[in-house]
Amino acid sequence: MTTRIVELRQGILKKNDELARGLRERFAHAGVLVLNLVSSPGTGKTALLERTLRELQASGARAAALVGDLETDNDARRLAATGAPVRQINTHGICHLEAEMVGKHLDGFELAGLDYLFIENVGNLVCPSSYDLGEKIRVALLSVTEGEDKPLKYPTLFNSVDVAVITKIDLAEACAFDRATALKNINEIRPGIRVFETSAKTGAGMEEWLDYLCAQRRTAPSR
Amino acid sequence: MTTRIVELRQGILKKNDELARGLRERFAHAGVLVLNLVSSPGTGKTALLERTLRELQASGARAAALVGDLETDNDARRLAATGAPVRQINTHGICHLEAEMVGKHLDGFELAGLDYLFIENVGNLVCPSSYDLGEKIRVALLSVTEGEDKPLKYPTLFNSVDVAVITKIDLAEACAFDRATALKNINEIRPGIRVFETSAKTGAGMEEWLDYLCAQRRTAPSR
Repeated sequence: MTTRIVELRQGILKKNDELARGLRERFAHAGVLVLNLVSSPGTGKTALLERTLRELQASGARAAALVGDLETDNDARRLAATGAPVRQINTHGICHLEAEMVGKHLDGFELAGLDYLFIENVGNLVCPSSYDLGEKIRVALLSVTEGEDKPLKYPTLFNSVDVAVITKIDLAEACAFDRATALKNINEIRPGIRVFETSAKTGAGMEEWLDYLCAQRRTAPSR
Repeated sequence: MTTRIVELRQGILKKNDELARGLRERFAHAGVLVLNLVSSPGTGKTALLERTLRELQASGARAAALVGDLETDNDARRLAATGAPVRQINTHGICHLEAEMVGKHLDGFELAGLDYLFIENVGNLVCPSSYDLGEKIRVALLSVTEGEDKPLKYPTLFNSVDVAVITKIDLAEACAFDRATALKNINEIRPGIRVFETSAKTGAGMEEWLDYLCAQRRTAPSR
């Protein structure tokens, strides 16, 4: 039975990879920079995105978001208040987003009119690592309240990302957050990775994050 | 393909349920109260358990723990410092504990010599809900830093638990935690469930939690 499951799983992942490849070409052709945000539930993906969308729009950039949750459209409603185009993907029991879900929710989005598309994955530090969504950049978020050893406990996910964002740094002191250990652990799993330290509440670190997005957008393949 | 996957999944869950039934009988026969702790990564399962094990032992009770993580034995080492018997279960890529893993790690534990056995699940708000581990009580933990809407976003898990523990209440003010909304959301998914509000750091709420454990232990089936 294990062999059959492994084969089925490989079949699903292969199909996902094919769909993701198609999405990646589509995004590149449209000239939109796509990011896939992954973290535990409650790390603050939506809060970071909310502030990011507001600041990008204030600077004249065009940004949109797809947001994944098992249930509710709370996050989409929260993000839509920024004025950006936002769509909720409800997975109804599935613990991660898949390329097919992303593809289905792009209908009606004018991709060529966008500079950035953020995909907020389902809160989960395991399964999203296996599913390519066609993104150019995969981002792991880790909050100061979660414990510094998460990269070591979830190495597959942290090893699959391009950049890491430490969130809620306004709470660092209250949580006795050990910054040096957190950075060491991230670096152990993903040596040399760029790490941002942010607070969506106070705005700390947002400038570096937005500069990074802007630079990545500039080097994205153009139409 | 979907049909075959559903059948395979049902087969796996059925086998798990059978093994869990066997474990439940074994635990009841030994007179040990077994709890399964589920939450996001970083909610503070280990911190709550650390303090719980210390306080139970100080009161003369005999408590042990099994702790699940994809990788590392950090949590087992941390809990073993309490003096309690502790075993780490590494799932190596599997995002939840299964009854078979629990069964395999009981060898050498003298169950009849224990009052309490805590099983700390892998940090995940989705898949652990489907896997019975033979526990008497399933506990959902939710920290004040994670957002009050988690029960609504992960209803399957919250609907499967017997009791909820809100953790890190020492950070409630710093996080602008909305207690009334959190309690309302928990109650919407699992009406009338008992909710504890704790801080493993300050000890707040620990007395009510320990009283509850003691009362549950008293009413557990005796040998």
